[in-house]
Amino acid sequence: MPVLVMKFGGTSVATLDRIRRAAKRVGVEVAKGYDVIVIVSAMSGKTNELVGWVNETSAMYDAREYDAVVSSGENVTAGLMALTLQEMDIPARSWQGWQVPVKTTSAHSAARIEEIPPENLRAKFADGMRVAVVAGFQGVSPEGRITTLGRGGSDTTAVAFAAAFEAERCDIYTDVDGVYTTDPRVESKARKLDKISFEEMLELASLGAKVLQTRSVELAMRYKVKLRVLSSFEEQSDEAGTLVCDEEEIMESNVVAGVAFSRDEAKMTLVSVADRPGIAATIFTALSEAGVNVDMIVQNIAEEGRTDMTWSCPVDQVKHADAAMAKAAQAGVINYAELIADEGVAKVSVVGIGMRSHTGVAAKMFKVLSDEGINIKVITTSEIKISVLIDRKYMELAVQALHDAFGLDKAA
Amino acid sequence: MPVLVMKFGGTSVATLDRIRRAAKRVGVEVAKGYDVIVIVSAMSGKTNELVGWVNETSAMYDAREYDAVVSSGENVTAGLMALTLQEMDIPARSWQGWQVPVKTTSAHSAARIEEIPPENLRAKFADGMRVAVVAGFQGVSPEGRITTLGRGGSDTTAVAFAAAFEAERCDIYTDVDGVYTTDPRVESKARKLDKISFEEMLELASLGAKVLQTRSVELAMRYKVKLRVLSSFEEQSDEAGTLVCDEEEIMESNVVAGVAFSRDEAKMTLVSVADRPGIAATIFTALSEAGVNVDMIVQNIAEEGRTDMTWSCPVDQVKHADAAMAKAAQAGVINYAELIADEGVAKVSVVGIGMRSHTGVAAKMFKVLSDEGINIKVITTSEIKISVLIDRKYMELAVQALHDAFGLDKAA
Repeated sequence: MPVLVMKFGGTSVATLDRIRRAAKRVGVEVAKGYDVIVIVSAMSGKTNELVGWVNETSAMYDAREYDAVVSSGENVTAGLMALTLQEMDIPARSWQGWQVPVKTTSAHSAARIEEIPPENLRAKFADGMRVAVVAGFQGVSPEGRITTLGRGGSDTTAVAFAAAFEAERCDIYTDVDGVYTTDPRVESKARKLDKISFEEMLELASLGAKVLQTRSVELAMRYKVKLRVLSSFEEQSDEAGTLVCDEEEIMESNVVAGVAFSRDEAKMTLVSVADRPGIAATIFTALSEAGVNVDMIVQNIAEEGRTDMTWSCPVDQVKHADAAMAKAAQAGVINYAELIADEGVAKVSVVGIGMRSHTGVAAKMFKVLSDEGINIKVITTSEIKISVLIDRKYMELAVQALHDAFGLDKAA
Repeated sequence: MPVLVMKFGGTSVATLDRIRRAAKRVGVEVAKGYDVIVIVSAMSGKTNELVGWVNETSAMYDAREYDAVVSSGENVTAGLMALTLQEMDIPARSWQGWQVPVKTTSAHSAARIEEIPPENLRAKFADGMRVAVVAGFQGVSPEGRITTLGRGGSDTTAVAFAAAFEAERCDIYTDVDGVYTTDPRVESKARKLDKISFEEMLELASLGAKVLQTRSVELAMRYKVKLRVLSSFEEQSDEAGTLVCDEEEIMESNVVAGVAFSRDEAKMTLVSVADRPGIAATIFTALSEAGVNVDMIVQNIAEEGRTDMTWSCPVDQVKHADAAMAKAAQAGVINYAELIADEGVAKVSVVGIGMRSHTGVAAKMFKVLSDEGINIKVITTSEIKISVLIDRKYMELAVQALHDAFGLDKAA
């Protein structure tokens, strides 16, 4: 029988009632003839409770013990979901990561799935099991210890199972009903997309759309897993939600698929750095080691032998960046005049695979912002994305103006 | 290095503070040079929460899923305890049942431990691990599924580890400071015993002393594991608590070690049963299948070819017994005049290995009760125990009078 993977996030299994509701959705797919692999997260709030206990116990905790503790939340949901399905007369059982087994690296709390041998589940499906309920977010290391994949890892678990079992589709049930052209809280005319390409989804996810974990989209793209994002709180048809798929499956699309934004950014400029080969590597290695997530990077030549280096990072990491640069200067590995931080910026991006074949998107974007009197502080571009840093106070205005100018409220 | 097993029950690990307190006790034993195996229960209340969810999900639940859900509580404590010990610079790690592995039967929710191969833990101890924190109450079946040992199973886990690792002692930390001659809430002169034999402990535990799970004491007796019961809420010396041990290790003892009681009993009499070989087996098989825990059994010959059969059981099982007998009569497998239930009785027992060599204990017990004007309704005896059923309203009086008469307030 064809296999379908269905993943339910924490809010979708937050209570026994919601687990029942999710189980009913599973029942609909079973009735269609699918063998279903259900991936579950911990009940909403449970993971935070467990993480809180670990942090309170040990500031510099052993990640192996963190994983052993935190993974228990998913085990509870998996068992309860299996019981709920059994109550509906659907042959189901729960699987913990080590039982499948979900083989991962030993990088505790941030492990990567290496292999999911399908034999054990296949044998049970052949025996009459119709639903395998798998605890998401976890696996087992070569040493036989429990690992977790990091926050949001259940999405990755779901896609990995879909790849391993060549599933017809991987449905991600969540608390939103799909992927939107932008955040409806900022632009009321935001429209749900029926389809979006993996590449666009990756740019939107990493830019703050927060619907799917980035790694799960990368994995889906690599293994060509059809991903569907849909709401667990609404009655669903086969066409519900947003399908994230290969761009070849998208016949028509707008040049721009969506407008993403990230509110709490900072722009930092290291002024008049003594330039030499490898200086960028030195700077960004030091920032990375200090835990600073650098996003945009721009370099200007200021004068002969000196350069200005500008980057953006989350505003709450400015102090770490400051300290890292001061330390590097003290150690004599870099030399600069000053480090300027602008903590009042936001990032706005337009994303779309159509940019590959359409010219003038950047020019149009800059004109729209200029017409609104919004000054652009930094620009970076990729093949399917143009991002700018602007004053935070103009962020909503910029998003609305761009959404409108690129006609995102209307289907292609 | 010699091995010590230490078990902490749910109230002893109910909060992070209590886990720290327990970890300090572990540290004391590590400092003495022991390699320690710590067995932990779930944090107080957690198991009930999980059981509640299972019951609410499914009335006739799949015990395999019950076990998968309920075992998660112990996993959390094991991880937190290992982290706490690491914070004290003690090399420790957590072990879930399947990791050790604790091999059990497939009787889910009531599994029996079959084997604990010591190799994995031994290898880690040889590598420098000083404390193995093991999730109690759980194991893994031959099919690779998680099993639990039933309520109180963590005591059994502890004793099984002590046997498998030939531990010097198995310390059971709980919320009482030892085994008493009777319940201090009923007799204020009740005295803590320094030592008690396995046999006496078994009679006391099954009679309601509720300090140690019966199975754990049986197991300790079989493998000659020295068990110590002590409080996790007091500073402890090496002589604290009560040592449960082989009777040969007890030099002096009172003839009677303790007075046990069970308040909510019922006495049931099946009047004028048509007697034939196998009638007792028929009756008690039917009761057992109806879930009735029969305790005392007495048979009287009433008239030629008829007999009266009397038994005791918990008062809340009377209705099940009624139904089971009515059903058996309807099926024609038994024939009786009537079934009388006296729901107002309690059981009082005196227990002591000294009875084996001292005569007159029964006579003394009956005289004491008679002097207090207490009528005895049923008597049963074993080698080291005499039990009577009396009216419930006289229970406290009987316990106090017996405690006094046998001099239990004074050490041997």
